[in-house]
Amino acid sequence: MEGVMKRWELREPGRANLKLTSVAIPTPKPGEALVRVRAVSLNYRDKLILDATAPRASREPLVPTSDMAGEVVATGEGVTRVRKGERVLAAFNPLWVDGPPVRVDGVIPSLGGALPGVLSEYVSVPESWLVAAPRTLDDVKASTLPCAGLTAWTALMEHGAPRPGQTVVTQGTGGVSLFAVQLASALGARVIVTSGDEAKLARAKALGAAHGIHRRQTPDWEQAVLELTGGRGADVVLEVVGGDNLGHSVRALASGGRIALIGVLEGFEARFPAVPLFQTHGIIQGVMVGHRRGLEELVRAVDTLRLEPVVDATYALDAFPQALEHLDRGPFGKLVVRVGT
Amino acid sequence: MEGVMKRWELREPGRANLKLTSVAIPTPKPGEALVRVRAVSLNYRDKLILDATAPRASREPLVPTSDMAGEVVATGEGVTRVRKGERVLAAFNPLWVDGPPVRVDGVIPSLGGALPGVLSEYVSVPESWLVAAPRTLDDVKASTLPCAGLTAWTALMEHGAPRPGQTVVTQGTGGVSLFAVQLASALGARVIVTSGDEAKLARAKALGAAHGIHRRQTPDWEQAVLELTGGRGADVVLEVVGGDNLGHSVRALASGGRIALIGVLEGFEARFPAVPLFQTHGIIQGVMVGHRRGLEELVRAVDTLRLEPVVDATYALDAFPQALEHLDRGPFGKLVVRVGT
Amino acid sequence: MEGVMKRWELREPGRANLKLTSVAIPTPKPGEALVRVRAVSLNYRDKLILDATAPRASREPLVPTSDMAGEVVATGEGVTRVRKGERVLAAFNPLWVDGPPVRVDGVIPSLGGALPGVLSEYVSVPESWLVAAPRTLDDVKASTLPCAGLTAWTALMEHGAPRPGQTVVTQGTGGVSLFAVQLASALGARVIVTSGDEAKLARAKALGAAHGIHRRQTPDWEQAVLELTGGRGADVVLEVVGGDNLGHSVRALASGGRIALIGVLEGFEARFPAVPLFQTHGIIQGVMVGHRRGLEELVRAVDTLRLEPVVDATYALDAFPQALEHLDRGPFGKLVVRVGT
Amino acid sequence: MEGVMKRWELREPGRANLKLTSVAIPTPKPGEALVRVRAVSLNYRDKLILDATAPRASREPLVPTSDMAGEVVATGEGVTRVRKGERVLAAFNPLWVDGPPVRVDGVIPSLGGALPGVLSEYVSVPESWLVAAPRTLDDVKASTLPCAGLTAWTALMEHGAPRPGQTVVTQGTGGVSLFAVQLASALGARVIVTSGDEAKLARAKALGAAHGIHRRQTPDWEQAVLELTGGRGADVVLEVVGGDNLGHSVRALASGGRIALIGVLEGFEARFPAVPLFQTHGIIQGVMVGHRRGLEELVRAVDTLRLEPVVDATYALDAFPQALEHLDRGPFGKLVVRVGT
Repeated sequence: MEGVMKRWELREPGRANLKLTSVAIPTPKPGEALVRVRAVSLNYRDKLILDATAPRASREPLVPTSDMAGEVVATGEGVTRVRKGERVLAAFNPLWVDGPPVRVDGVIPSLGGALPGVLSEYVSVPESWLVAAPRTLDDVKASTLPCAGLTAWTALMEHGAPRPGQTVVTQGTGGVSLFAVQLASALGARVIVTSGDEAKLARAKALGAAHGIHRRQTPDWEQAVLELTGGRGADVVLEVVGGDNLGHSVRALASGGRIALIGVLEGFEARFPAVPLFQTHGIIQGVMVGHRRGLEELVRAVDTLRLEPVVDATYALDAFPQALEHLDRGPFGKLVVRVGT
Repeated sequence: MEGVMKRWELREPGRANLKLTSVAIPTPKPGEALVRVRAVSLNYRDKLILDATAPRASREPLVPTSDMAGEVVATGEGVTRVRKGERVLAAFNPLWVDGPPVRVDGVIPSLGGALPGVLSEYVSVPESWLVAAPRTLDDVKASTLPCAGLTAWTALMEHGAPRPGQTVVTQGTGGVSLFAVQLASALGARVIVTSGDEAKLARAKALGAAHGIHRRQTPDWEQAVLELTGGRGADVVLEVVGGDNLGHSVRALASGGRIALIGVLEGFEARFPAVPLFQTHGIIQGVMVGHRRGLEELVRAVDTLRLEPVVDATYALDAFPQALEHLDRGPFGKLVVRVGT
Repeated sequence: MEGVMKRWELREPGRANLKLTSVAIPTPKPGEALVRVRAVSLNYRDKLILDATAPRASREPLVPTSDMAGEVVATGEGVTRVRKGERVLAAFNPLWVDGPPVRVDGVIPSLGGALPGVLSEYVSVPESWLVAAPRTLDDVKASTLPCAGLTAWTALMEHGAPRPGQTVVTQGTGGVSLFAVQLASALGARVIVTSGDEAKLARAKALGAAHGIHRRQTPDWEQAVLELTGGRGADVVLEVVGGDNLGHSVRALASGGRIALIGVLEGFEARFPAVPLFQTHGIIQGVMVGHRRGLEELVRAVDTLRLEPVVDATYALDAFPQALEHLDRGPFGKLVVRVGT
Repeated sequence: MEGVMKRWELREPGRANLKLTSVAIPTPKPGEALVRVRAVSLNYRDKLILDATAPRASREPLVPTSDMAGEVVATGEGVTRVRKGERVLAAFNPLWVDGPPVRVDGVIPSLGGALPGVLSEYVSVPESWLVAAPRTLDDVKASTLPCAGLTAWTALMEHGAPRPGQTVVTQGTGGVSLFAVQLASALGARVIVTSGDEAKLARAKALGAAHGIHRRQTPDWEQAVLELTGGRGADVVLEVVGGDNLGHSVRALASGGRIALIGVLEGFEARFPAVPLFQTHGIIQGVMVGHRRGLEELVRAVDTLRLEPVVDATYALDAFPQALEHLDRGPFGKLVVRVGT
């Protein structure tokens, strides 16, 4: 594979410093696969990294974003896990294969963070970072699985899935939450969505949610959850707001219930009253995306359930800055950059 | 069984209103057993109830405390679970047999709380509330199992026991923490104790702790935990302090680690930073004593391990107020009231 | 409640000795509820008990069968769990509330076995034996939940539910297997059914199964399972045949897979090759119906999923012998006796 | 590293064809570490492979055995997981890092089987195959951990460890069983050993077993287990005999108990009665050594518990045939070949 390719780079913190550059297409080393990137899905954390983080090393620019779907176009020596022509996803935490998180310096290394990003026409990565893409999704939709999809999957499935007839609460209408609405309702759980926007509640119900709670009209939304469940409470809550909202989630829990703490939209410190957690023997679990086996399972689940991730809009590669502005406004579901077509 | 018996009663909130009264010895109804109480162990929650709670009903006085060891002296019609002459304990949450907590009006009913207490020469209770006492402990030591012992057991065992070679952090030297020191070290875990008292740290080490951290000399005690574990962190933390201390516990966690949130000494609201919980996929679990099966398992474990609960002092029944004053000062381990001898 | 009622009784082993008798309607004792039985579902084990078992005591006749739906018509003193007019089911293993099995003399006591049966116009039972009936099913369908429904539920859910995208194998088209087809497909699992009857395979597919394997045309049916799963194998197998068939199930397992051993149609001794179980770290789990919490969860699941158990035929109370003959022939799903209407 | 080294090779099935050869010391490729082997522990499966298996490919000889302890003496390009001078063990199933088994062609690849063996003065292997050796054991004892030690660890710990006060049954006095005696008694479990040799029973008791059952004097040994446990039965059984013995193990189980099926001394087909497994909801779990994370945990546990594996005898490298003859006779614990000293 010869020639040049475009990619987005950052050499100074701050998204104003993003540059679309031309660099040589890499050659896959032994054990690596060269992937032609077709679609890149954006996440809230990409904004945090662009705006706040210094690139890791002075000479290597930061290539942003983590989630891509593409096609293997060449393989290095000794590659057996993927083959040329195969459609693939990259794992978000590619060094974490299974079991408890594999950390380096206290952090689970992830693409577009401690490891290189994917907003590029081609990437050459170790074959062990790649997972077969779902048969039933195109590249745009498939690209939303590695971070948003897997976060919802890990939160719902990896610590005891909700049972049919149990109640799941999701918050807001970002990519993770909508994925959780679709997945939890496909499992037979009763899903309650909270949001500050009546129209978005209606759209979430169309995706499978049984009930919506308007967060501003009902600030003590846990009361509504308790009423909707005959006093039992929620068996699983996906907490994406954080801060004081965790206290509401704790008060919404059923006996033996579980909160997957995922987001920090309202602050990096979380607060909650201890007594309701005592009386339910409830659990608060930190969730940071997930391992590669989880992504492989998610792909199989998506193909079996025919689950279609919600994509709000797509952008061309050179329109990445506009996509970031859309991200600032809060999309309904995911934003995806189309690459190389 | 005829005659009168002594018991402590409270008809108005506030421990100044405690009265040692004489009432008729009850007759066991069908399904009940009459137990001659031999020893009653005190817990921090007994103080909270005495000082802050209105008795439940105007005509029924509150009989305080929950934890007793005694002997069955008579049985009502149809009783098969216990027999006359058997040494027994009462379960703290006697309606919760197994599985997730069984709650009534949002609370797991407990003795000396929503259900009658045991600070009495005799109690007549449903047979299903009773569990065989350990063979290897006298009544004074056995009486410490239903609340303090079972809390430590539940926190350590019921959500995935620590493995040999893993690290357990316990806080302070109250009854639950010392029980956890003994039990976790018997499991082959490496136990680290935090305390604000050098002498108490030494005594905790004598019970099996591998390391002590002086909490006032090392306020960021999680750093010491990380150093002692080569950067891995603690696999299980028994959080008895609450409030801001939870943040230190979260930062002390190993990958896949777990915090059992048990106590609220520094406040009923707990606070912690979300990011370290994400990076470990760590768990915070509310623990409120435990179910009857847990108590039965604990009794077997105590008999097999020959584990001896730490009793700081014993008091006579009429010296209950002095025992409460000792409780205010913070004992090393448990305080027990001897009854009826 | 005064008057007489009909019930089936057996005083000598052998179904020829069954007698439809008239006895006094019982009066509920303290803690009991009197239930007007509306429907009784039959199980394979009822045949085994009738044909082979001596009644437990010479003076008490055996009242056969275990599974009923009915209505509470009177309550004894102190009853709080159910109220007059409530539609209820009886738990199959009513003394086992949660956790590991509660056994008496090595056996989990069950209705129509070590405990009284329900083929009677009225039964008076401890309130703790009863569970609220599903809102969305009539009495005939609801009566199939306590044994067949709960067996499928326990087998699928209580030891780690199959995940969407995973594969579940069910065997035959009896009540448990059809229930498992419906439930597992509602969870998003891919269900493969084996049967010796082409028409029944077609009907099982109509209930949600993705594939059918004709057991006589493909005696090594595990090969077909491996082909259908791209060599991965089955994540969960519900083994209802037993005997040598267990060996096929073991060879059909995926890595980390699980066999729920439920039935003994081909013999009480099971045989399997050890090596394939080693290479998958697979699990064989004995399943004997389940606990009361499981039944409560199943009822909620049925109401949420709108799951309709398959009833092949219904019979009037005095046609119980004909229903047994139908049972001998192997129904598609369940047979139910209508009582008292 | 230049020069030649000795290693054992097999080019035709049958141990008579074993040859001690001289070959060039390998040079580590990128990602590999060259290990000077110090000790190699033998396992029963080594005999099976030598006697029954054709070498995998005509040109590559089979180098037997799987379990070694040694020292890293050189590293290839890019190696970060180990460093020169470090004492290491090789993982038995080195491609299986965590989670469910990773299989290739239906088999978990293992050293000395589908992957190269270690009975050689030096081996060059991917760094990911290596694990730090325990600080507290010499190379001879450390070499027993990867197969026998990890098998016992997996069987006891990975599917819910026995709790203090629970009962564990081990069979015979081979390496896995003795390891399990030591580990389970260190966890506070009560261990019952079965053996056909009174003297070996006495030695097993000296290692921590609470009771011994003479298998020939008590062929229905499950009766003795039930008596010793007051009728409760065993919570965990390590089944190393297989065949008909599995039936005894099933009848020995407690409610909710578990059998780890490990060995096939009496045949590759296992048989058991279904009904007792139903009544306990018991589990039979296939165990084939374990994953790399398990080995890492075991090393930490051994260091914390100061557990000393039992080595019956050691042999020099050129005495490997004599070691095999000792293996035929059934050692008490492990046999180890000392290499290169």
